[in-house]
Amino acid sequence: MVKLSPKILRPRLGPPFSSRTFSQLRSKHLNHGLQLQSCNGLQPRLTHSRRSFTIESNSNRNPSSNTSLPRRAIFSRLFTFSKYTLYLTLSSVVGLVVLTSSIFIHDLFTYTTRHVDHVPINPLALNLERGGPKNLPIARVLVDDDEDEDMHRIARDKPRLVVVGGGWGAMGVLQTLHLGDYHVTVVSNETFTTFTPLLSSAAVGTVQVRSLIEPLRKIVARLRGHFVNGKAIDVDFGQRLIEVECVGNGEKVYIPYDKLVIAVGSTSSTHGVPGLEHCFQLKTIADAQAIRRRVMDNFEAASLPTTSPSERKRLLSFVVCGGGPTGIETAAEIFDFCQEDIINYFPKICREEVSIHYSEAISQYAEDKFKRDGVNLITNSRVAAVTPEHVIFTSKNADGKMEQHTIPTNFTLWSTGIAMNPFAKRVTDLLRNQVHRKAIEVDAHLRVKGTPQGTVYAVGDAATIETSLVSHFVESVEEADKNKDGKIDFGEWEQKIPMAEDHVTKAREIFTMYDTNGDNALELNELVKLLEDLGNKITSLPATAQVASQQGKYIGRKFNKLARWREREEQKVERTQSDTTSTTSSSATSLSKDDVRSRKNIIDIADESICSPFRYFHLGSLAYIGNAAVFDLGKYSFMGGLAAMYAWRSVYWNEQVSMRTRALLMIDWIVRGAWGRDLSRL
Amino acid sequence: MVKLSPKILRPRLGPPFSSRTFSQLRSKHLNHGLQLQSCNGLQPRLTHSRRSFTIESNSNRNPSSNTSLPRRAIFSRLFTFSKYTLYLTLSSVVGLVVLTSSIFIHDLFTYTTRHVDHVPINPLALNLERGGPKNLPIARVLVDDDEDEDMHRIARDKPRLVVVGGGWGAMGVLQTLHLGDYHVTVVSNETFTTFTPLLSSAAVGTVQVRSLIEPLRKIVARLRGHFVNGKAIDVDFGQRLIEVECVGNGEKVYIPYDKLVIAVGSTSSTHGVPGLEHCFQLKTIADAQAIRRRVMDNFEAASLPTTSPSERKRLLSFVVCGGGPTGIETAAEIFDFCQEDIINYFPKICREEVSIHYSEAISQYAEDKFKRDGVNLITNSRVAAVTPEHVIFTSKNADGKMEQHTIPTNFTLWSTGIAMNPFAKRVTDLLRNQVHRKAIEVDAHLRVKGTPQGTVYAVGDAATIETSLVSHFVESVEEADKNKDGKIDFGEWEQKIPMAEDHVTKAREIFTMYDTNGDNALELNELVKLLEDLGNKITSLPATAQVASQQGKYIGRKFNKLARWREREEQKVERTQSDTTSTTSSSATSLSKDDVRSRKNIIDIADESICSPFRYFHLGSLAYIGNAAVFDLGKYSFMGGLAAMYAWRSVYWNEQVSMRTRALLMIDWIVRGAWGRDLSRL
Repeated sequence: MVKLSPKILRPRLGPPFSSRTFSQLRSKHLNHGLQLQSCNGLQPRLTHSRRSFTIESNSNRNPSSNTSLPRRAIFSRLFTFSKYTLYLTLSSVVGLVVLTSSIFIHDLFTYTTRHVDHVPINPLALNLERGGPKNLPIARVLVDDDEDEDMHRIARDKPRLVVVGGGWGAMGVLQTLHLGDYHVTVVSNETFTTFTPLLSSAAVGTVQVRSLIEPLRKIVARLRGHFVNGKAIDVDFGQRLIEVECVGNGEKVYIPYDKLVIAVGSTSSTHGVPGLEHCFQLKTIADAQAIRRRVMDNFEAASLPTTSPSERKRLLSFVVCGGGPTGIETAAEIFDFCQEDIINYFPKICREEVSIHYSEAISQYAEDKFKRDGVNLITNSRVAAVTPEHVIFTSKNADGKMEQHTIPTNFTLWSTGIAMNPFAKRVTDLLRNQVHRKAIEVDAHLRVKGTPQGTVYAVGDAATIETSLVSHFVESVEEADKNKDGKIDFGEWEQKIPMAEDHVTKAREIFTMYDTNGDNALELNELVKLLEDLGNKITSLPATAQVASQQGKYIGRKFNKLARWREREEQKVERTQSDTTSTTSSSATSLSKDDVRSRKNIIDIADESICSPFRYFHLGSLAYIGNAAVFDLGKYSFMGGLAAMYAWRSVYWNEQVSMRTRALLMIDWIVRGAWGRDLSRL
Repeated sequence: MVKLSPKILRPRLGPPFSSRTFSQLRSKHLNHGLQLQSCNGLQPRLTHSRRSFTIESNSNRNPSSNTSLPRRAIFSRLFTFSKYTLYLTLSSVVGLVVLTSSIFIHDLFTYTTRHVDHVPINPLALNLERGGPKNLPIARVLVDDDEDEDMHRIARDKPRLVVVGGGWGAMGVLQTLHLGDYHVTVVSNETFTTFTPLLSSAAVGTVQVRSLIEPLRKIVARLRGHFVNGKAIDVDFGQRLIEVECVGNGEKVYIPYDKLVIAVGSTSSTHGVPGLEHCFQLKTIADAQAIRRRVMDNFEAASLPTTSPSERKRLLSFVVCGGGPTGIETAAEIFDFCQEDIINYFPKICREEVSIHYSEAISQYAEDKFKRDGVNLITNSRVAAVTPEHVIFTSKNADGKMEQHTIPTNFTLWSTGIAMNPFAKRVTDLLRNQVHRKAIEVDAHLRVKGTPQGTVYAVGDAATIETSLVSHFVESVEEADKNKDGKIDFGEWEQKIPMAEDHVTKAREIFTMYDTNGDNALELNELVKLLEDLGNKITSLPATAQVASQQGKYIGRKFNKLARWREREEQKVERTQSDTTSTTSSSATSLSKDDVRSRKNIIDIADESICSPFRYFHLGSLAYIGNAAVFDLGKYSFMGGLAAMYAWRSVYWNEQVSMRTRALLMIDWIVRGAWGRDLSRL
């Protein structure tokens, strides 16, 4: 019986399709304007379009199917669930197969059989002429200057930029420069740059040392630059020559420059405490490897059958004497290493006997975390001496007397202050008006004071920005004197000199030191004395990677702007020349193209005209404190457990210098999660 | 107009569905017993089931749609293609997301805060009693014997198995043993085992050193075993004590054993050529690291501006003096390194000036490959001397005179023969009937000859299977004498002694040497003399990783069978005891449970009763020859380019000792494909 009506009736379904499946299918196809009808061959049905007639089915009213519906519903749900799980699994497998195949196919193309034909090389590169104050060979042309690529040839005629150093300052410059503007040469005694913030992770094996380094050759390759593996030892500002002692053969050579960037960093201070030679530092990759070896040796020795209980305790005591975030992180990493790896493979008594000692004031959160972890916090003590067998602390006891206590240990990590790099020392010796004891004085545009304008720059630990602090403050002392009593008390002073937190502590000490008449306020004469001495001891900015990186990037941007200005100047001169040659044959005043390109004829514009002074933006500091992290972001802090640790990792992951190190770091963290840290002493 | 017929007519399709899409959809749904009809709302259609009536459509005959069909066909194909590409991409993305999330979630759970309560420790482990011939402390109980886990306690009462060494032989034993059968202690001066076949890849940076090592503590952890970081220096077979000198503090201790497996390997021979101290070896991880440093230093020094052309050539000459697969692979890896990485980051002149020299006879395929690659093959020459500056070869020139030629080089790799490990030497010195000069003599069941039956075994380079070669051959000399002329000529002899190819060459020399009357045949007396001397110089099996691994596994299987036998014996005794105690009160002959467990009361069954002698199956040897590989699989060889190289990698990947090293190796190969090899000298 056929009845026409605009309604759509839902026909009865035979197995194996549930009503749900049918409605899904139908709604899907309705969108396509298609109609479905089920058919089992025995009850033919007619369907219809939306706007046409209806065929009513009798069997829809059959109640006999209701009792089996719940079971069918369960089955249908299970079926749907397993169907989607199967889709998801298949998708995942397909995804993995696609990923693996693409990696494999890419790998297939990396086995090149490129042949190098005869390489053009300038004979001047093979026989260097001698010259300069010490009559050494001058590397005016390098062996890879004339290589086939276009960019190499273009760079050859550009101003010569020499960067001394391979750390954060140098990275900042090199990764900001544009290709083709300068002939870049990097001079460094290490062939790679190190991602220093993660050194404490490498010292314990959480990440590999390889993941923290990037070869400098790869970095300069982007700029078609050059790398010389040597140590800068002297410089002649007049002739613009830098003297380099080559690593390996020790031969000396001059490298000429038009612009020099000094980014040599700092070294560790050896003053302070007797026995420093028994301590470990953590500034370089070699330090991290040495710490790793000592930690593993300690655990192996503690597991030997011949080790006495007292010796075992000594071997498993780790003392970290301060050092800011680095020290905290190392103590935390050692703790995590014991908790997560040692406990699984070494005799458990090793874990029980481990004691970690940390001596320096830290934030309350970190203190609580360390207390929970059982890290011994030594507060209000100073390190008196270090021997191969123990560390001696002195502290004031309740009576006010000084007393000593000793911790037997086979591992002491000491972070001393910084000292000047020998090359930086040489530079300041050569410049008579440089009096700072820790770094090269530069102005607000990072130009080294006393050198020909715009030729020599310094960044990072090696530099300190001196802007006539004394005169600046003497002028504004009245402004600082808020209560107009003719003196500066500590509160007014703290406001005037924005300093990092550790400087404030030091500043309080110094304030007290210079307050000679003890009235808790500084008169003008006391203030002037203080500022003079202060200026010579404390660098204007803390010696951190952030500062060096920002300064390097500033230099890079400045040089880019300078290169654009030079281009415009060159175009101007060329237009002038083509105008003059077309109007007159006199060549008295016209510049040839070579002259234009020649460095001597275009004096670089002053930095002030194209660039504002350097400004440091403190992004905050963060420290890992053992499956937790502390973020100090200036206005607010953020501390937390695993979530903060993942955030800490993300920040460092993002800060890497290349995709390669990012990938390696990620791999290291994943491998640590799957198989634990490395247990070898390599 | 409605016409009934059993045919199915294809209705006209309106946009946007092509006829192809429709037929696809229809065929898909036909299987479900559903019928489709397209509908665009203006021309209603009726469809039907397969067995019912037909409604013919007039508009099917409309020819006006034919002209736009090809374009629609193209669009529909594009649409289908992009649809499936989209599905594939989405699947891949879903797969990657699932993979990444699971890795992340797993990682989240690896930051444990497990606490170790007071660890039970046997006071006997802390104060060792002294004894033995030298009155040293005897480590009867170790510090981790009583740890909380059940398996530790069970193992404590089992026979004590001590394995000396940490290479392929030791791995074979440790990875075959079943948990809980023995109290296992491993004594090794290195804390890890090395995957030696890939050392040449590590020497150049294709893989990381970390990927080739597995800490021994992780391997013994499976057996709840123990590890002592020390060097075996002496042994007392009577009291079953092994004297160990601990690494680090140098203290000596006795470790008692019931079964001892000597797997100390071999050292490098220092005989042969003057100047060996200027050569590099490639047997250990430290060797690989030293080679890496030298190679990188050479390239850096060659890039300096002060290097003269002749010095550059010398720095970039790499000489490999033979050494079987290891030497070939190192030469090939250095070549690939130059082709794939050096050429990108170092001055191209470095690539041009590189010369690789290889001196040893190799297969024709490898020779052709090396010739194509420009590797200089030095044939028919011997190394006369090595200095820090060059290598001196002697060869016979056309006239038959000896002449010298020199290759200036800064890198020489020399693979000398093997010499006895000092501990193996000590063992043979203690056993009077051991006369072999290179290894400890063992019988066909790998038991050291002269030691109490079933207590001391030796595997790998340190052992040689002596089965009375002389008597064996004297008996069968008649059998060997095929032409019955009372003498053995070289052909008959070659057949009798199956040897590896390099032995055949040596054998020819030796045959000639012992053929004192020069009749190109060996009489019985000459033969006996030859065999005696032969037996003392050549080990029965080559000193390779395969041999050591198979021997170690054989020992492991034998010990498993022994443990099963002990179990059955213990059960037998217990049943006997429970029978006797229930029938009689006399305890004169019954054994207590402790007695049963005590080692002294059950004498181990002889090896011959539970195990057949050791048989070596040579699986073949393979070598990497620079993006190609040579497989020598006994009956047939297989050599090829990249495909063979991937096969070579697969074999080594499969042979790794753990999933961790497999993953690390795969990661290394992928990273090499993406970012090239490491360029650092770490």
